[in-house]
Amino acid sequence: MSALEPVLKHLDQNLDKSVDHLFDLLRIKSISTDPAFKADCRQAAEWLVEDLKSIGFDASVRDTPGHPMVVAHHEGATADAPHVLFYGHYDVQPVDPLNLWENDPFDPAAKEIEPGRKILTGRGTSDDKGQLMTFVEAVRAYKAVHGQLPVKVTILFEGEEESGSPSLKPFLDSHKEELKADVALVCDTSMWNRDTPAICVALRGLVGEQITIKAADRDLHSGFFGGAAANPLHVLSKILADLHDETGRVTVEDFYEGVEETPSQILKSWEGLGRTPENFLGPIGLSVPSGEQGRSVLEQTWARPTAEVNGMIGGYTGEGFKTVIAAEASAKVSFRLVHKQDPDKIRANFRKFVEARLPADCRVEFHPHGGSPAIQLSYDSPLVTQAKQALSDEWPNPAVLIAMGGSIPIVGDFDKFLGMDSLLVGFGLEDDRIHSPNEKYELSSFHKGQRSWARILAALAAK
Amino acid sequence: MSALEPVLKHLDQNLDKSVDHLFDLLRIKSISTDPAFKADCRQAAEWLVEDLKSIGFDASVRDTPGHPMVVAHHEGATADAPHVLFYGHYDVQPVDPLNLWENDPFDPAAKEIEPGRKILTGRGTSDDKGQLMTFVEAVRAYKAVHGQLPVKVTILFEGEEESGSPSLKPFLDSHKEELKADVALVCDTSMWNRDTPAICVALRGLVGEQITIKAADRDLHSGFFGGAAANPLHVLSKILADLHDETGRVTVEDFYEGVEETPSQILKSWEGLGRTPENFLGPIGLSVPSGEQGRSVLEQTWARPTAEVNGMIGGYTGEGFKTVIAAEASAKVSFRLVHKQDPDKIRANFRKFVEARLPADCRVEFHPHGGSPAIQLSYDSPLVTQAKQALSDEWPNPAVLIAMGGSIPIVGDFDKFLGMDSLLVGFGLEDDRIHSPNEKYELSSFHKGQRSWARILAALAAK
Repeated sequence: MSALEPVLKHLDQNLDKSVDHLFDLLRIKSISTDPAFKADCRQAAEWLVEDLKSIGFDASVRDTPGHPMVVAHHEGATADAPHVLFYGHYDVQPVDPLNLWENDPFDPAAKEIEPGRKILTGRGTSDDKGQLMTFVEAVRAYKAVHGQLPVKVTILFEGEEESGSPSLKPFLDSHKEELKADVALVCDTSMWNRDTPAICVALRGLVGEQITIKAADRDLHSGFFGGAAANPLHVLSKILADLHDETGRVTVEDFYEGVEETPSQILKSWEGLGRTPENFLGPIGLSVPSGEQGRSVLEQTWARPTAEVNGMIGGYTGEGFKTVIAAEASAKVSFRLVHKQDPDKIRANFRKFVEARLPADCRVEFHPHGGSPAIQLSYDSPLVTQAKQALSDEWPNPAVLIAMGGSIPIVGDFDKFLGMDSLLVGFGLEDDRIHSPNEKYELSSFHKGQRSWARILAALAAK
Repeated sequence: MSALEPVLKHLDQNLDKSVDHLFDLLRIKSISTDPAFKADCRQAAEWLVEDLKSIGFDASVRDTPGHPMVVAHHEGATADAPHVLFYGHYDVQPVDPLNLWENDPFDPAAKEIEPGRKILTGRGTSDDKGQLMTFVEAVRAYKAVHGQLPVKVTILFEGEEESGSPSLKPFLDSHKEELKADVALVCDTSMWNRDTPAICVALRGLVGEQITIKAADRDLHSGFFGGAAANPLHVLSKILADLHDETGRVTVEDFYEGVEETPSQILKSWEGLGRTPENFLGPIGLSVPSGEQGRSVLEQTWARPTAEVNGMIGGYTGEGFKTVIAAEASAKVSFRLVHKQDPDKIRANFRKFVEARLPADCRVEFHPHGGSPAIQLSYDSPLVTQAKQALSDEWPNPAVLIAMGGSIPIVGDFDKFLGMDSLLVGFGLEDDRIHSPNEKYELSSFHKGQRSWARILAALAAK
């Protein structure tokens, strides 16, 4: 019998205990955005430190200008065992509106909602306390069964993820030596569906730019000046209309520089996921993909860059009419980036794009927002291959490699400050209602999540 | 000696008296938009009725659901004399902010501001009490000198011009027989400049339309859906960008149907007015006409139709960024019409224009606003020719025929309800600060305005 089997068995036998233990953490109201819960945040950090100490970690609360970090270390079974940094966050979203919760958000409960299907309810069950405890339980079981851990483990729990992580970058920067490992394990993502685990290998980057077009030095009467004076809303409309060609491609110069074609076997595996325009767009009242032609909706949202106008305003926008020619008009435009697109170059080329379309008498002001490159991890590194096999062994369906249209800044920060790749594995589901009332986590996610981490740690040690 | 000369002489001799008389009317605070001044409005109407009675008019105050009308009649010297309807308004704009007035707005004064140049100051001096009294004084002088009037005169003074004239249309409709005349004389416009009188022969019409483009049934996260979901701001930008071709012409189907080329001698006379892009656009911080190419700024704003986006909004427009794909976006678009353009047809064709550009999954909602055709009076009718000669005889420079980019609804109403053309002659100046603090009227406008009306009445009688 392998070293893994008794660990899995231990996890099965201790499931109820691990649920009760999670509930203790869930009862702590660690809402990071609201200063009223500052002490609760510290209490959650201290709870985690005590818990990790009980497993044998060298664990401590680390103060920051905001909420504290939890850092913990544990040696591996051998001196040359791989070293992993596990990341999670103990802070949670606010709970308003409280009246929409079926249960007190800080009084967690387990419910059977259909035969054989139990859920855990309460704020933080899925995002992210339940998720981070899947790893802690796996480690606890390994230690209980074998008296040691198969890999060297460093743990970093953050308390500001839901409020923009202001302390994270400085903390990583000043704790490089302490936190550096072979790989970061990030448990803050979702499965593809209830039976299909997923590893996220790509996250789109983002460049935002607000552009304000100015013409006359005041608002004008369109009766008096209409037909002669430049209208910033016309200028802005033309610029934005030019952003895409008739096939949906972005027309900013060199925009596709660094964009790679997705490997055909990956595209094929995505086809197998059964995402269609109907089941993706149907729930939001749409049916026809409007983006880049010749790409599936998964490719459009996971592996292709975009330009979107997120907001636009100018002139009179109240009730009724005012026949005014506005002095200025502005728009917020964001680009989602993939692969090796360079955010700085794209911002510069977009500004050139706008300036080249400015008619006489018009000026433009730019205000930058964000600017992060995409994260593209390998589809077939040994790490990914091992994790994929470990997850496939645990769940009904084989694991799939997915991407995310949005960004998880921590992954870029681990790369930038610690020079580490991340492995993004999580057991949340799309219907977990994170950030909303009645957040839940499937008991199967909590249980099989623990078993998944045990399998992944065993696989990493075996390499 | 003609019948006119002694009338002009009488006007000269009685100028001071007429100024004092005007000041009595100016002291009445007939602000029509503020219910607190309801009694003052009636008092102004009664004052005018008494004054017209003193000249020999059959004059009376006529109640309406709002402020009263003044209607007065006087026979002409002969049974077949022409019949004119003179229109003016006795209500005035509010006076806020009061602290910006150099003098009490309702304590009118005459001031010499440079050698040989006097102005009358106070609310209503130019808009419109001073203007309407130029006509009353001309009539008073005629009656005093000759005991009769050269033409049959009906007078209509309104008290709601500054508050949207809600009672005017119903009043015209129910008093057709009483008010119908050969021509309406409207004294509510300006001269070209201090030495150059003007007759306004064209007013642009207006069609407004609010369009709202809708796509998904909620705002979307651009990370998750960006690249696949329709973005109403993109759709709206493309539609609005398509509204003009590269020469500045409007691209809505049949838009130029009914638009006539301005006669070359009129264009030539406009050239003589010396309006340049620099002196027209310079004061508002612009320098290059942006509209239809190959047209002067006067032609662009007086004799050519336009399409202007007056307002646009959609998505996130606050501080910073929200990477949202909006569920909807809307714009207010107005068209200024000239000559025989049909407002209904243009609205219908614009809606078709929008619908033809709607991609899959997008819907549009329309909300109409306004819808009035342009007023285009003859450039060379006997009436215009006579008035032009009369004005040219009075002022240093010959009279010019001008147009206005905006609209004066009363002119359309006289045509619609009474089947009458209007002659638009006024003696205001661009710097009269109507609707603003420190409104003024040139004493030369008041004096030579009286003499101008005397000349016009004599010319009409002589035909």
